[in-house]
Amino acid sequence: MGRERGASGVGDERASVFEGFEVGAEVSKQDYESVVPDLRVELVNMQYDLQQADFAVLVVLAGDDRKDANEMLDVLHEWLDARYLHTHVFLLPRQEELEYPDYWRYWRAMPPDGRIGIHAGAWPLRALAERILEEGSRSKLDRRIERMKALERCLADDGTVLVKLWLHLPAKQAKKRLKKAKKDPDREPYVGKEDWEIYERRDETMPVAERLLRETHTPWAPWSIVESSNSRHRNLEVARTILQAVRQRLDGGPARRSEGAPVAPRPSGSKVRTLEDVDLGASLEREEYRERMVELQGELARRVRKARGRVATVLAFEGWDAAGKGGVIRRLTQAIFARDYRVIPIAAPTDEERTHHYLWRFWRRIPRNGEMAIFDRSWYGRVLVERVEGYATEAEWRRAYAEINDFEAQLVDHGMVFCKFWLHLDPDEQLRRFQAREKTSYKKYKITDDDYRNREKWSAYTEAVDEMVARTSTEAAPWHLVAANDKKWARIQVLDRVVRALEARV
Amino acid sequence: MGRERGASGVGDERASVFEGFEVGAEVSKQDYESVVPDLRVELVNMQYDLQQADFAVLVVLAGDDRKDANEMLDVLHEWLDARYLHTHVFLLPRQEELEYPDYWRYWRAMPPDGRIGIHAGAWPLRALAERILEEGSRSKLDRRIERMKALERCLADDGTVLVKLWLHLPAKQAKKRLKKAKKDPDREPYVGKEDWEIYERRDETMPVAERLLRETHTPWAPWSIVESSNSRHRNLEVARTILQAVRQRLDGGPARRSEGAPVAPRPSGSKVRTLEDVDLGASLEREEYRERMVELQGELARRVRKARGRVATVLAFEGWDAAGKGGVIRRLTQAIFARDYRVIPIAAPTDEERTHHYLWRFWRRIPRNGEMAIFDRSWYGRVLVERVEGYATEAEWRRAYAEINDFEAQLVDHGMVFCKFWLHLDPDEQLRRFQAREKTSYKKYKITDDDYRNREKWSAYTEAVDEMVARTSTEAAPWHLVAANDKKWARIQVLDRVVRALEARV
Repeated sequence: MGRERGASGVGDERASVFEGFEVGAEVSKQDYESVVPDLRVELVNMQYDLQQADFAVLVVLAGDDRKDANEMLDVLHEWLDARYLHTHVFLLPRQEELEYPDYWRYWRAMPPDGRIGIHAGAWPLRALAERILEEGSRSKLDRRIERMKALERCLADDGTVLVKLWLHLPAKQAKKRLKKAKKDPDREPYVGKEDWEIYERRDETMPVAERLLRETHTPWAPWSIVESSNSRHRNLEVARTILQAVRQRLDGGPARRSEGAPVAPRPSGSKVRTLEDVDLGASLEREEYRERMVELQGELARRVRKARGRVATVLAFEGWDAAGKGGVIRRLTQAIFARDYRVIPIAAPTDEERTHHYLWRFWRRIPRNGEMAIFDRSWYGRVLVERVEGYATEAEWRRAYAEINDFEAQLVDHGMVFCKFWLHLDPDEQLRRFQAREKTSYKKYKITDDDYRNREKWSAYTEAVDEMVARTSTEAAPWHLVAANDKKWARIQVLDRVVRALEARV
Repeated sequence: MGRERGASGVGDERASVFEGFEVGAEVSKQDYESVVPDLRVELVNMQYDLQQADFAVLVVLAGDDRKDANEMLDVLHEWLDARYLHTHVFLLPRQEELEYPDYWRYWRAMPPDGRIGIHAGAWPLRALAERILEEGSRSKLDRRIERMKALERCLADDGTVLVKLWLHLPAKQAKKRLKKAKKDPDREPYVGKEDWEIYERRDETMPVAERLLRETHTPWAPWSIVESSNSRHRNLEVARTILQAVRQRLDGGPARRSEGAPVAPRPSGSKVRTLEDVDLGASLEREEYRERMVELQGELARRVRKARGRVATVLAFEGWDAAGKGGVIRRLTQAIFARDYRVIPIAAPTDEERTHHYLWRFWRRIPRNGEMAIFDRSWYGRVLVERVEGYATEAEWRRAYAEINDFEAQLVDHGMVFCKFWLHLDPDEQLRRFQAREKTSYKKYKITDDDYRNREKWSAYTEAVDEMVARTSTEAAPWHLVAANDKKWARIQVLDRVVRALEARV
């Protein structure tokens, strides 16, 4: 797409990526008016067809001139049916947005399947602004680039059509436009002092923009550079690029998934823990348990109070049925003021959630600074129940390891306290607990036929757990495998771990 | 409920509502420990049963002592299964919350069907704080009380079980507790300087609290006052009150709907406009249309820019199929920067939305200050399609008029610009447009068999529209019936109205 219309070719090694697009392409008013009506029909038809599709479209609109991006956005809103557009203009992050990981605001704004989302001023411009205006370091930019690539890969692999557009205005035109705006400010309401500043820093900006484009230009999320000296040319180029990308998919073209999406590596050797390594004989005497519990709950209470308003905490609990997740969570929450935490039980996704990437529903529930979210089951469902039961394809659960690692890295990078636990027990102990539950009136609801069926898949689950632990135990977010044949032991292990994680931050 | 346990009786006329509850009720440690285990089993069982139910439970926790409310919240979190609790502690509104109507934050936090929500420090305490601490006027308090009653009626009529608890600590005990806390601050982490201040202003506070309780004590949302001098007594009272209220409903007891919920009055006489009054002959010449359109769009652009960051705008569009809603909306959005508005097409609710009051999904989409939301169809579906097609019961759509009036009043009270339009045409013109659409490739998607079926119900819809207009044309939010046989006329009418509404505010 695009090369023949001068709208691509970012991957080439040249002195300047942008120069290749400064060809002064123009479209006459007459030509423009003769093609626009049909183009608009095609765009709207495309939108209607898209409504039945099982994928979303995300248009990322960026560029080196503010006025262009704003104008283009307005044209797209006029040409497309605005009722089915999910447009978000990202300015400098608001206070509220700063209290979440950087990419929370983009995730929150993702379009559902069947719709087009337009993100203007989103992650590419944010990275640029940080490097230039806030004088972020080179290594910060490197990290941003990695993060962008991970996000785009994640969306593309989920089937999202990504259309990334960079509107490029050559320096000469930029200066001409600014001068014109100075003379007649009423006619150029978008142009202001900041634009002069941006213009004057072009020598710094453009090389960074160039690097950004080169490194985030991938087959599944390609950049299209559009020269915007002539607004008619720009409008047609952009509309056609979007139309072509979406139409291709609608007409049965394959999703541009990342080829060979990285599967998070599975380390080998003695460092990797498996469920077999867990010493299920570990236990605690009642008296020691009580003493330790009082001590740990006290310390937990103090640490959580200190974290208030500053540090967010995410705890994720996974484990065999009846391994005691609920009991552990209650021992934690007992020590914490009710206003300071939220328990989030994860069951089947709602239909709204189903029309998004599977991580979307977890991003929705990420706590802001000062809050604690306790997930009772989590995003690991993808590589556990969805894998074993066949709800996710092998490609889906395979790539999930890397997606999850990236997700958790973002929580930790934001400064969150994050811990994840697998509560382990053996099948005999599980059976004893099932039978005991059936005898206890207020627990009998917890036992269904499903629970017995799941027991038959013990070895498939064991394999899934071992692979999960191997591939998603990262430096920043290691798995804690907790022996839970003895509930007292398990509770103390978890509380101790959480307290120590909090201690390290507050 | 409760009177026999001293937990009700707010409606009585006495010198002080609270004195009747200062009976010094105590529960010994031994008695407490003998009943708590069974009570907890009952509570958890109740929660599991509730999960299958088609109603929600909202516990409103307030009181005249902060420590009590905090402690009680923690006890409820310990006794109930925290995984199925939706707890929200409302402090002073955050900046973000101030940018929406007052009750937005409560609506946002409403529990879905099958769950218990706990709102601590919610609307009753906010009203009290405003009156006392912020020296809000008496009439402001009156309005708050009316609003509370309307919200509670709205929830109760939707089937929500409302349990409102006021924890009352007699003055003597309050002082004693404060003194103790001063001596040993480590043991009373909840108590601080503010509590002394609250204590010292009791003479002002209590009469206001009393009035608040008296006036918002209704059969469908009764207050239970619980003396909290003895925390064991308090815990048991509160838990039992919740348990009894929910259990009663679960065991087949009727929902406590407001008896004779007010149907918004239907005024009579010449003031009321009906669809018949609309002059469908109104039209505009092309030239005049063009001139007016340029002028109005220019003015609209200027006004929207002025509203940026300050004033929110909500526009709601209803009308016959093919009356031209889409075209009108496009003429509006053409004039507005894409970042400044959002078009919200209303279709069937998602399953998440279905488990809430029908207004919840509109509260979710209310714009914050500086934003514009354009609803393509709206909350009026309740009294239009849902009424005519029988999706809502008669009781449901009848009470919706008052609920809607209250909802819109809140938007306007917050300072929003709000306009609502019905686009009217006659059946012949509609048929012509259907047929024309079928011939236009990019519009054919807009025509389905449903559209033809709806035509057969023209008179039922006319009746519904006329009643809607009569009952929901309020001073603050009048209906604009727009003749739309001529599209040009309709577009100019709408733009003119929106511009004038904006002019009045910015």
